Amino acid sequence: MKNAAQSVQVSTEKHRPRVVILGAGFAGLTVAMRLACQPVEIVIIDRHNYHLFQPLLYQVATAALSPADIAAPIRGILGHFDNIQVLLDTVTNIDRDRCQIQTLSDRRIDYDYLVIATGATHNYFGRDEWHELAPGLKRIEDATELRRRILLAFERAEIEENPARRQALMTFVIVGGGPTGVEMAGAMAELTRFTLARNFRRIQPENARIILADANERLLRPFPEALSEKARRSLERMGVEMKLGTRVDHLDRHGVRMEQDKIATETVIWSAGVKASPAADWLGVDSNAAGQVAVEADLQLPGDDRIYLVGDVCQHINPDQQPTPGLAPAAKQQGKHVARDLIARIRGRRRPGAFVYKGRGQLATIGRHSAICNFGQVRVTGYAGWWLWGAAHIYFLIGFRNRVVVAANWFWSYLTFGRGIRLITGDVAVKPDASSAGNPGRSTLDQSR
Amino acid sequence: MKNAAQSVQVSTEKHRPRVVILGAGFAGLTVAMRLACQPVEIVIIDRHNYHLFQPLLYQVATAALSPADIAAPIRGILGHFDNIQVLLDTVTNIDRDRCQIQTLSDRRIDYDYLVIATGATHNYFGRDEWHELAPGLKRIEDATELRRRILLAFERAEIEENPARRQALMTFVIVGGGPTGVEMAGAMAELTRFTLARNFRRIQPENARIILADANERLLRPFPEALSEKARRSLERMGVEMKLGTRVDHLDRHGVRMEQDKIATETVIWSAGVKASPAADWLGVDSNAAGQVAVEADLQLPGDDRIYLVGDVCQHINPDQQPTPGLAPAAKQQGKHVARDLIARIRGRRRPGAFVYKGRGQLATIGRHSAICNFGQVRVTGYAGWWLWGAAHIYFLIGFRNRVVVAANWFWSYLTFGRGIRLITGDVAVKPDASSAGNPGRSTLDQSR
Repeated sequence: MKNAAQSVQVSTEKHRPRVVILGAGFAGLTVAMRLACQPVEIVIIDRHNYHLFQPLLYQVATAALSPADIAAPIRGILGHFDNIQVLLDTVTNIDRDRCQIQTLSDRRIDYDYLVIATGATHNYFGRDEWHELAPGLKRIEDATELRRRILLAFERAEIEENPARRQALMTFVIVGGGPTGVEMAGAMAELTRFTLARNFRRIQPENARIILADANERLLRPFPEALSEKARRSLERMGVEMKLGTRVDHLDRHGVRMEQDKIATETVIWSAGVKASPAADWLGVDSNAAGQVAVEADLQLPGDDRIYLVGDVCQHINPDQQPTPGLAPAAKQQGKHVARDLIARIRGRRRPGAFVYKGRGQLATIGRHSAICNFGQVRVTGYAGWWLWGAAHIYFLIGFRNRVVVAANWFWSYLTFGRGIRLITGDVAVKPDASSAGNPGRSTLDQSR
Repeated sequence: MKNAAQSVQVSTEKHRPRVVILGAGFAGLTVAMRLACQPVEIVIIDRHNYHLFQPLLYQVATAALSPADIAAPIRGILGHFDNIQVLLDTVTNIDRDRCQIQTLSDRRIDYDYLVIATGATHNYFGRDEWHELAPGLKRIEDATELRRRILLAFERAEIEENPARRQALMTFVIVGGGPTGVEMAGAMAELTRFTLARNFRRIQPENARIILADANERLLRPFPEALSEKARRSLERMGVEMKLGTRVDHLDRHGVRMEQDKIATETVIWSAGVKASPAADWLGVDSNAAGQVAVEADLQLPGDDRIYLVGDVCQHINPDQQPTPGLAPAAKQQGKHVARDLIARIRGRRRPGAFVYKGRGQLATIGRHSAICNFGQVRVTGYAGWWLWGAAHIYFLIGFRNRVVVAANWFWSYLTFGRGIRLITGDVAVKPDASSAGNPGRSTLDQSR
């Protein structure tokens, strides 16, 4: 233990304060980039070796982009700053008395200041066993697994003799009508209506049922009602069925039950709510229903001015009593604020004080030529909104390469309606009988990942 | 069974002869494309839903390309031809009396003509248990697993306290000095010398040991001696150690033993020889040491003029008594020949007769600015050879998108020395102690895939 902790110090200078950042998402990465070249020593720890542009994960799941298009290696972004140390590791606990974090690799790392930006994962509202049956869209592995299940469902439908099972294979249920669910539904509609159409002989992918379910009566709650309505109508125009105001109360490998009606399906996509990573447990403090830790106006942990929480892991209330939303721009703004506050403290300057979220607008795309953008007074929808959405997302992608490749991929798909990333990797199961597990042809749904 | 076989016929016309093609590699895909729009009904069966450009798999393993860059969905290539049916399935047996093939999904598919192009896999020369310890480069999953192990080795070295284990983590052994082994060694040298350099604080990736081992005394046996020599020298100039003329006789998760010397390493890459897929067993005929089925001069199975074998699965001897090499161009030439022969038979025209392989030259690249190209009289090496190699490989990639994206990726890497695909996906293990299995931090080497 001890010499491990020292070992981290070996490579660093003693007199500069050390800022340890947990998580290299939008919030954590922003803090690190803002503190680079400042008189601090930074240790950034992430359980992955890449920063992931989560808002586009659904495009990986629907074969429009490759994982590497929306992920940039953290060392590639921060590696050349001499005051930044990147560690691939997983936090297991925080020792606030000793000012140390503990990691899965049995190491203790001292901090002078700690920034917790460990984000959130899916929220199955206590039914964690559903994760196997209905993956969400938080990690690259989730997206490639969904891509595998979606593409495989059509391959299996093509050889399925039983019409009922063929219909079930060609039915896709998306649970959760937030931005992710809406964008996923639109992308699925495109994939089936355009890309896969005519590629099969015995099935018509364009007849696939795509169902978007939400316990709430309307989609995209953060958006104004009118835009939610627009989104619903354009999705319906693309052939997406709505099941609004009904809660999913049962899931198994053969289907979904929502109050009254039961839908036979083998592919369920989960996008209903997020649960913060267990920072509250590490810190020994309370959390809200979503597992978030409440922070002060300046994003500090109440009663511990060495610790900040930023991004989805924290609950921050703005002066107007509105909570800061769980969006990438909000996480970045919080990251900038914390970096500014830390620099002020270290240089003994006046501190910026309370963080106030500046809503720069909300964007959501609904497949080809349709998106909704809300900038308060200004609302852009349809064709123009779609181009705006694309431009914004390419602009915010980190890394020159990713921007170029994503732009190229999108342009190609735009011209050809094709999607080049239609790879089924991992276990390939085409046995018509899904219940026969244990051999290479076993069901995609009963395999453990 | 029965109605399954019928079910395939439902979607097809009776009077046209049916050609069943097993495998959508270079050989099988060429046959299908040549027979498209001919008066035949084609069923092409592959266990993957994509055609893979295997010669560039090593670039996926070394984070230069994404899997989708070198793989194209079979339905995307063939889906729009009405006389072609694409099935994702795995062949389990061939019933020559009934002229049926049997698949993993318990279906029987009738054929009038059968083209077997199921290719080859790695050859561990009877030590199949080595596959876990030393993956080869035949499938996308192999390449991403190698990428994971290589990148993870550096991450683990960065936090490793024990100098001996740190050295072992930074040692990479490539077994097999054929084109794949040589190209892999060159790519590894580049990755460590250029891309990863300066990205770590406690280790110097540029000091990683890259060892290329072959039982033979010289590299690239198919090439002329002078070029093999050139290849060896340029690899050595890049810092690759040679262990030639020594056979690997033991492998475990801690290292490799080659006759006298034992090398401590946790990453071994296998590129020593290939073994044909079990077509001989399906057909009930003999095979050679590499598992290949000997074919007639016209690529037919001796004694059964309904069955052809093409590509790595067959052993074909040319009039000059030389066997056709296991290269992509050879497989394509054989595919063209079989298609021509089938068209002639179906249209009752004169048949082309014996297949003769036309060697158009051999190419192998050895990292940045160095490749060797052999066209008999003409030999191009070094800088010019490298550009020639790149142009050839982009030209032969299937699919407009892949060409553009690969060119873009290469150009970007060329300008920046960077590699954007440095993603560690799947199990991330950074526990310094590799022997502690069973938790998320378990060793990368003792996990079963």
